[in-house]
Amino acid sequence: MARAKRIEGVLAPVITPFRKDYAPDAERLVRHCRWLLKNGCSGLAVFGTNSEANSMSVPEKRRLLEALIAGGIAPAALMPGTGHCALTDSVELTRAALEMGCAGVLMLPPFYYKNAPDEGLYRNFAEVIERVGDERLQLYLYHIPPVSQVPISLGLIERLLGKYPGIVAGVKDSSGDWSNTKAMLEQFAKSGFDVFAGSEEFLLANMRHGGKGCITATGNINPGPIDNLYRNWRSPDAERQQAAITATRKIVQKQPMIAALKATVAHFGNDPQWKTLRPPLVELNSVQEKDLISELKASGFSMPGLG
Amino acid sequence: MARAKRIEGVLAPVITPFRKDYAPDAERLVRHCRWLLKNGCSGLAVFGTNSEANSMSVPEKRRLLEALIAGGIAPAALMPGTGHCALTDSVELTRAALEMGCAGVLMLPPFYYKNAPDEGLYRNFAEVIERVGDERLQLYLYHIPPVSQVPISLGLIERLLGKYPGIVAGVKDSSGDWSNTKAMLEQFAKSGFDVFAGSEEFLLANMRHGGKGCITATGNINPGPIDNLYRNWRSPDAERQQAAITATRKIVQKQPMIAALKATVAHFGNDPQWKTLRPPLVELNSVQEKDLISELKASGFSMPGLG
Repeated sequence: MARAKRIEGVLAPVITPFRKDYAPDAERLVRHCRWLLKNGCSGLAVFGTNSEANSMSVPEKRRLLEALIAGGIAPAALMPGTGHCALTDSVELTRAALEMGCAGVLMLPPFYYKNAPDEGLYRNFAEVIERVGDERLQLYLYHIPPVSQVPISLGLIERLLGKYPGIVAGVKDSSGDWSNTKAMLEQFAKSGFDVFAGSEEFLLANMRHGGKGCITATGNINPGPIDNLYRNWRSPDAERQQAAITATRKIVQKQPMIAALKATVAHFGNDPQWKTLRPPLVELNSVQEKDLISELKASGFSMPGLG
Repeated sequence: MARAKRIEGVLAPVITPFRKDYAPDAERLVRHCRWLLKNGCSGLAVFGTNSEANSMSVPEKRRLLEALIAGGIAPAALMPGTGHCALTDSVELTRAALEMGCAGVLMLPPFYYKNAPDEGLYRNFAEVIERVGDERLQLYLYHIPPVSQVPISLGLIERLLGKYPGIVAGVKDSSGDWSNTKAMLEQFAKSGFDVFAGSEEFLLANMRHGGKGCITATGNINPGPIDNLYRNWRSPDAERQQAAITATRKIVQKQPMIAALKATVAHFGNDPQWKTLRPPLVELNSVQEKDLISELKASGFSMPGLG
């Protein structure tokens, strides 16, 4: 079987709904994924940081992935997060994602041991690739040092890309440091390495330098306008569009991000169960929630067709 | 069934041997555990930081635990690490440890999301305790902010201890900050909360202030002298003993700790396979290894009866 067509454009690290007992809620997840694909997302980076992926076990994630596909979400649109601290967990979920036909996987480095040397991180990714042993694999590296505390260096990318061209397909850069994203673009974009900004704040800059889009938290609630900039980044209106989507993001990130995204979907979709987060994260308090929703409304924000 | 007798004294966060293909090596682990219990350890904190626990999946750890008990290691001596990022993983391994009769469990907080509020960490531990739902549970909190980056605050301990006295049994303080250990002792030792120093460097101080021992990396290679101080902390010789075990530790921690422990066991046990670490960690290079072994030898260090 050939490799899936690479996803480009706007991807949401899809927030995961939980029931009152903190069980993942596959039905609500399928509904939200459908809304996202209909409203601007080209792909779904389920099991990302904003999905509370690391608060779920491998079997829980595997079952959600099966439920998404059974629920009609095209595997060609899926780029699940499959990187864990344990090598064997990363192998298991990556293999499962490939067997289900997912277009790619987004892989965190093992993040418990800080200061792991590049040699050890190289061995981790190489070992996953070798064990999965499937030419269809398209692996996107997930660089998010503010959370993982384990960076993916340019040297590490160079070495992995040299050994596994085609399989090592790109990166999500959530460093928040444009100079790093730019360096990745300059050094690797020509080798077929797809660079996604980790925030729509850098979408226009990323497109201008040869990037492929963004994978962004606020893609969960504002996919239409972000996708519009992605499609029209060469237009004279691009700077204005960039300013508008950045302004929306700024409102949301005044609050803890994942709780804010969930409160937004709960409000605009009229579905309070969405507010639940799995420990160790917690929902917004009532003041935070009121501030968020009133600021969003005042800005003219909407989620058309939700709920 | 009643709760197991609480472990006091010196515990090793037992290093985990891997085969060439990075599979956990249960047979070597049983052998090392036997040596530890014969040479000064009162307990075995398997699946700690120094065990590369977070590089193993829940099923791998469960199988190792079964193999240890099948291999004759008394569950009464076992305090496995069972804290994971995912609530459901922590519940699963904690339940398994209890069913196998382990004396206690040592629990990391969920460590992916940084800045998780105490309320969320409280919910995590409370939810684990409620789901496990077994009065035999003795849970030791694992405070290791230099690695986990998620601290266990005094306020969190107070709240958990108030709600679950007896079940919340103690702490391992690997902050490296004696003033924090002292505060834990002053505030909670009288409530039956057992404080273990996370390094033998603080063993004498911990005993003098009402602590119960230490859970220390170098317990893997130097358990006899550490246990000797634990048993004789009131003796006039205690300060000298403290200086001696601290000096040995200082030699080891010049190198990356886990790799150094494994190189030491490999050398003194004449078993080179012990040198293997699972990615993302790597073995010492030859210079580091030579420096370590020659310094240890020069200091008069030995591992009696190993190999």
